[in-house]
Amino acid sequence: MAEIEIGRGKSGRRGFDLTDVTIVPSRRTRDPGDADLSWKIDAYRFAMPLVGAGTEQALSTDDAVVVGERGGLPLLDLEALVAESAGRDEVGEQLAKIKAADLRVGAAVSPGRAVELLPRAVEAEVDMVAILGPVVSAEHVSVNNDRVNLKTFIRSLDVPVMVGGCASYSSALHLMRTGAAGIVVGADRPDLGVGVPLATAIADARAARVRHLDETGVYCQLIARGPITSGAQVAAAVACGADAVMVDASVIVGPDPSAEDLADDLREAMAVCGYTNLKDFQKAEVMIG
Amino acid sequence: MAEIEIGRGKSGRRGFDLTDVTIVPSRRTRDPGDADLSWKIDAYRFAMPLVGAGTEQALSTDDAVVVGERGGLPLLDLEALVAESAGRDEVGEQLAKIKAADLRVGAAVSPGRAVELLPRAVEAEVDMVAILGPVVSAEHVSVNNDRVNLKTFIRSLDVPVMVGGCASYSSALHLMRTGAAGIVVGADRPDLGVGVPLATAIADARAARVRHLDETGVYCQLIARGPITSGAQVAAAVACGADAVMVDASVIVGPDPSAEDLADDLREAMAVCGYTNLKDFQKAEVMIG
Amino acid sequence: MAEIEIGRGKSGRRGFDLTDVTIVPSRRTRDPGDADLSWKIDAYRFAMPLVGAGTEQALSTDDAVVVGERGGLPLLDLEALVAESAGRDEVGEQLAKIKAADLRVGAAVSPGRAVELLPRAVEAEVDMVAILGPVVSAEHVSVNNDRVNLKTFIRSLDVPVMVGGCASYSSALHLMRTGAAGIVVGADRPDLGVGVPLATAIADARAARVRHLDETGVYCQLIARGPITSGAQVAAAVACGADAVMVDASVIVGPDPSAEDLADDLREAMAVCGYTNLKDFQKAEVMIG
Amino acid sequence: MAEIEIGRGKSGRRGFDLTDVTIVPSRRTRDPGDADLSWKIDAYRFAMPLVGAGTEQALSTDDAVVVGERGGLPLLDLEALVAESAGRDEVGEQLAKIKAADLRVGAAVSPGRAVELLPRAVEAEVDMVAILGPVVSAEHVSVNNDRVNLKTFIRSLDVPVMVGGCASYSSALHLMRTGAAGIVVGADRPDLGVGVPLATAIADARAARVRHLDETGVYCQLIARGPITSGAQVAAAVACGADAVMVDASVIVGPDPSAEDLADDLREAMAVCGYTNLKDFQKAEVMIG
Repeated sequence: MAEIEIGRGKSGRRGFDLTDVTIVPSRRTRDPGDADLSWKIDAYRFAMPLVGAGTEQALSTDDAVVVGERGGLPLLDLEALVAESAGRDEVGEQLAKIKAADLRVGAAVSPGRAVELLPRAVEAEVDMVAILGPVVSAEHVSVNNDRVNLKTFIRSLDVPVMVGGCASYSSALHLMRTGAAGIVVGADRPDLGVGVPLATAIADARAARVRHLDETGVYCQLIARGPITSGAQVAAAVACGADAVMVDASVIVGPDPSAEDLADDLREAMAVCGYTNLKDFQKAEVMIG
Repeated sequence: MAEIEIGRGKSGRRGFDLTDVTIVPSRRTRDPGDADLSWKIDAYRFAMPLVGAGTEQALSTDDAVVVGERGGLPLLDLEALVAESAGRDEVGEQLAKIKAADLRVGAAVSPGRAVELLPRAVEAEVDMVAILGPVVSAEHVSVNNDRVNLKTFIRSLDVPVMVGGCASYSSALHLMRTGAAGIVVGADRPDLGVGVPLATAIADARAARVRHLDETGVYCQLIARGPITSGAQVAAAVACGADAVMVDASVIVGPDPSAEDLADDLREAMAVCGYTNLKDFQKAEVMIG
Repeated sequence: MAEIEIGRGKSGRRGFDLTDVTIVPSRRTRDPGDADLSWKIDAYRFAMPLVGAGTEQALSTDDAVVVGERGGLPLLDLEALVAESAGRDEVGEQLAKIKAADLRVGAAVSPGRAVELLPRAVEAEVDMVAILGPVVSAEHVSVNNDRVNLKTFIRSLDVPVMVGGCASYSSALHLMRTGAAGIVVGADRPDLGVGVPLATAIADARAARVRHLDETGVYCQLIARGPITSGAQVAAAVACGADAVMVDASVIVGPDPSAEDLADDLREAMAVCGYTNLKDFQKAEVMIG
Repeated sequence: MAEIEIGRGKSGRRGFDLTDVTIVPSRRTRDPGDADLSWKIDAYRFAMPLVGAGTEQALSTDDAVVVGERGGLPLLDLEALVAESAGRDEVGEQLAKIKAADLRVGAAVSPGRAVELLPRAVEAEVDMVAILGPVVSAEHVSVNNDRVNLKTFIRSLDVPVMVGGCASYSSALHLMRTGAAGIVVGADRPDLGVGVPLATAIADARAARVRHLDETGVYCQLIARGPITSGAQVAAAVACGADAVMVDASVIVGPDPSAEDLADDLREAMAVCGYTNLKDFQKAEVMIG
């Protein structure tokens, strides 16, 4: 870790955004058609490494179906669903619609309501759950509130869990130790002066993934989250170490860019750089442009 | 100190502004309500680490009361007060108004008029005084003028003194040695080609604070001064080492942003990074973004 | 190779664009008239180190003649020529027009159609051929398609071959090993997040040229390709190590800038820096501005 | 010299402009009135370290008088003067006007016409001469033209000579060895891709000045030349090592900024940083902001 001296009494590392990163072609090239974009988390395989969430407004069930049909994992906003419905029945109805299309679906909730709402979602046969906040840690310390102990809670759920965002080696490592199948990387609050540029956050979490794998034998998925809207940015995230990317569902549903364009671009990026699958593409040489 | 070669005959360090700095969340998070923003200088405790001064126009007594009520330390402009009043009585009247509200109040003056005006302010029972200029040193050398010897003068005053701005390790250390309770960090004159980017100035003064503490057992407060108007910038200043921040009173009085917003943002920044008090928050990991 | 840590799990080098580079005058100066801009590839000598291709639309035969007359090498787009003509006769006709002016002419084709089209061009007595794509490697791996083996194919042609673009030491080295007379350096696909800033791509290929020369005794020409439109950029490319530059033919044909202006600027750049030929100019000291 | 790798086959140093540099206040401050701006070259002393030349149009005799009255050294454009007058008498007349005001005056000429025109100027009792071009070296090599040998020619003149611009350690050192009283630092031709950022050019020439002083016992003046129009920029140039600065006469003559403003700013910059003369101010700590 190369520290830069800000002044005599404080140093810090330099952070890099995905837009600072460019991928260097290797000495091989491939056919775009030979590039495999599939992503697997726990027992589920997806045609594309994309998690489609509603970031500005809750994901509609119709859009969730489109996300799933185009190969991504749709994440319903459990809190919005519960708020809209009088009781919990509607959650099951919405899930049923998606599952009727033979698609996988996930449900997201904030840490504060995870204990209350996630068991209902699991009961309604959601495939995966996500505990999401701007900044989520494995160790939330509170004087007054009784907050969920993620280490106990996540292991108690019967479905794979994604949790985050986080933005450092140690916070990523501790989230992995909760037993989550995947962690969401990216915890930016520029309005508070808090955050880590995304390329650096991913690369730090990647090192945590290596250590966690060494300690436990478990490979924890890294889902990068940030202002990602193009195949170029997905490619950069993967080259930094991400296994998948969380985007606003509109990026997948379209109309511009749509999942097809994005997949085509990612496939072509892999091809011109000489890679045929995402795991190998993580090894691509990158440059700070 | 990593020097960069400008050319073969001159080198210099790299300086960083607060806007270059982003704070890295730790592996813990907290509740914003558990974050304690209080700041103590000498015997006085303030609910917020903010000194409200009039930077473009003198602080009115009414605004001073608001600054105090919202938890900050108001700094009256002694020279403006004296200029407005025929005699010195008005100074006492203004102070009385503020003290009637059971609030602490300070009075600021430039180094050139400190000897003349500060004793009057102390007599009028001001709680603190500040000797402020764009660039103030402990050793002002003059051929013709008889300038105040800060080392003697500051120790002669019966109230705690803040003095500055300064912008390097050695100038901060020498100002601390005058016996000041706090030093104002930030000495920027871009119109003259002179200045140090604020994050670097704070971090350098922080190292001087450590040395001064080691030499004397006295912890000298660092009050960062610069174009600070948001909770994010206050957070960055604290993470670099500042104990408090001097802002234009309008930043505290409002309407936009008001002290409440700023305090909320600072409290949330501390919470998502896992800290409960300002001194601990100074240890936060930072990154050059 | 100085690697920068993006994060704990990924590092990368820093890349530089031609616009980041400025050339440092040496302790000598020269007359612009003494600067020799000539460039030699295989047996052919050109008055200027410029390859004029049609980048946005195919190069017309008229423009090709102007490119040649002004001292550059015109590159016809073989695929466009074939598409326009019913049969292959037109290729020969176009070439004949240019050769009638006693000028050298090249024909470019993409790797996918090289085997099909290049032999016809050679038969039609083109002077050089170019196998060009955004990113071309010596080792294209394909599951379904039967792609050209460049190492065999290039050696089978009876004319000198340029091939590229490439953008790293290893990809440049492997393209050189195909027996190409020149390689095209620059493989930028910013839309895919892929690419290497051009100054760095040239400097990396330069190192590959040294190794290839050491291994084989053959000096392979580096033709830089990128958004180059001025003498200043040509100068920077040469100073980084390029032997010639591929530009859109309009840069040579004019009206603004025209080849004359560009040649004048390049000649003057060499003169004020103290160099009289392009090979020496490659040794010029450069600075990152 | 810290080299940055542009790519494996080419490295270069990083260059800095005056606008990249900010001056760090020392632990002392001074009164602006105690700052001495005077500059001495050979036997001549000037109230301000400014050489006023006509950069866009030739300096009028009236403006030359104002430059001199305000404490700077006016540089007449000898070639323009000769071109305007039928014979050489007018040169003497113009000089006489300025000298009648009891002011020092210099005459500038390009290297190509130095041998022809400078002896006339010396005869007409000019105080100093300047041999100026965008890039001037001590060793101009020409196949066809008979160019002046500066080493012989400069020593043959009976008045002090300034010569430049130059932009590297070795070119500065060789110009110093011609016996010039001052060298002009700054040789920027961005239109050609050639040049060195000015702060770096000055700092490199400063190192050459030290070596030249060590070798010969002679202190050669460094006159910085570039787009300098403010006291802040003059201050930065001096802090990097310049003894004086060449500006367009309009910067001195006014109206905005005028020499008075510029002198006031420079004096205040020196005072807040704690320096009383320009030579000491060259030692000021600087920072890359």
